[in-house]
Amino acid sequence: MKFKEINFNLLKKKPLLIVISGPSGVGKDSVVRTLKQQEQTLHFVVTANTRKPRVDEVEGVDYFFVSRKRFKEMIENNELIEWAHVYDDFKGVPKARVEEAFESSKDVLMRLDVQGAEKIRKLYPEAVLIFLLPDSEEEWYRRIEAREGGRPKDLGQRIEAIQKELKMTSLFDYLVVNADGKLQETVDTIVAIINTEHQRTIPRSIKP
Amino acid sequence: MKFKEINFNLLKKKPLLIVISGPSGVGKDSVVRTLKQQEQTLHFVVTANTRKPRVDEVEGVDYFFVSRKRFKEMIENNELIEWAHVYDDFKGVPKARVEEAFESSKDVLMRLDVQGAEKIRKLYPEAVLIFLLPDSEEEWYRRIEAREGGRPKDLGQRIEAIQKELKMTSLFDYLVVNADGKLQETVDTIVAIINTEHQRTIPRSIKP
Repeated sequence: MKFKEINFNLLKKKPLLIVISGPSGVGKDSVVRTLKQQEQTLHFVVTANTRKPRVDEVEGVDYFFVSRKRFKEMIENNELIEWAHVYDDFKGVPKARVEEAFESSKDVLMRLDVQGAEKIRKLYPEAVLIFLLPDSEEEWYRRIEAREGGRPKDLGQRIEAIQKELKMTSLFDYLVVNADGKLQETVDTIVAIINTEHQRTIPRSIKP
Repeated sequence: MKFKEINFNLLKKKPLLIVISGPSGVGKDSVVRTLKQQEQTLHFVVTANTRKPRVDEVEGVDYFFVSRKRFKEMIENNELIEWAHVYDDFKGVPKARVEEAFESSKDVLMRLDVQGAEKIRKLYPEAVLIFLLPDSEEEWYRRIEAREGGRPKDLGQRIEAIQKELKMTSLFDYLVVNADGKLQETVDTIVAIINTEHQRTIPRSIKP
């Protein structure tokens, strides 16, 4: 039997823009790497960075590792939709990569510092912004120490920065605790957020 | 090491009011029953109904099955926070059960007809309203037929009602398709929605 006059097909899957952000040392890179490996429906936007690659990072996959000279050129040529100077490094989002991502029919995933996320919110108000939180001060410090190979020289500056960032959480849509040794739990929570956003009656899509 | 000046404890779990709604015949009862059995963190509000219990329904657990006389009394005594006349039956939400639920520290779960959900939205704007959709017209009709033991006499009236209800989906927060034979998938989606709502930076809690 076909009534034809009833249309139940109201749930349209439209691509989302998902931003993973949070303070330095919270584990954004590990979270994003696992998400990319696990979820084939995400189109990841590779961003540009002037820092040295870490031991497990791959050029063009995790970041574009560029020289400061090349980064300045990118700024001058208007190749970046946004960029920031975070601690000693420059980080930016290449326009071309964003356009490419939006042309895929996939959900778009970006990893950004809190400053970057703030700019993306202005450019794309419909973005789904996720703020990762460490479980505790001790854990955050341990991670910073492990990465830097000891107590960082600019610890005071880092504490100041994180305090400022934690005041900006209301800019974000979701808070997710990325606890030590519970990476998969964090990733599962983010996947649930993405799936849930697709169930909204009024989707926050990057496409009409 | 303890900095004390950094407070990462921003994610406070606050109770939500979750409403499962959708057109007659979509399977609200099965979904809610599975949710109740599976999720011990939900406090279910048992509502009053004047219809006959179905074969697997338990008084005081699934519904309070009351006479029309008693239901009218409940209206007159102001015992219901909302009530509606749906097809031939009266359905209502007892105030005492809602107060009891809000006093628990659990998430509160209600199952309501679309009319009831509309009223709850006005009373509790922070409620999380979920609209269940059938997969197709055929499936919806098969369910109605199975329940009624044949083609219902008032089919025209039902089609008219469902068309009106489908226009009200923007009142709801989420749409979930409850496809035939995929009850567990529907329940998993709703659990993901509840978990995700708890990750919001600004929780839509029934408590301050």
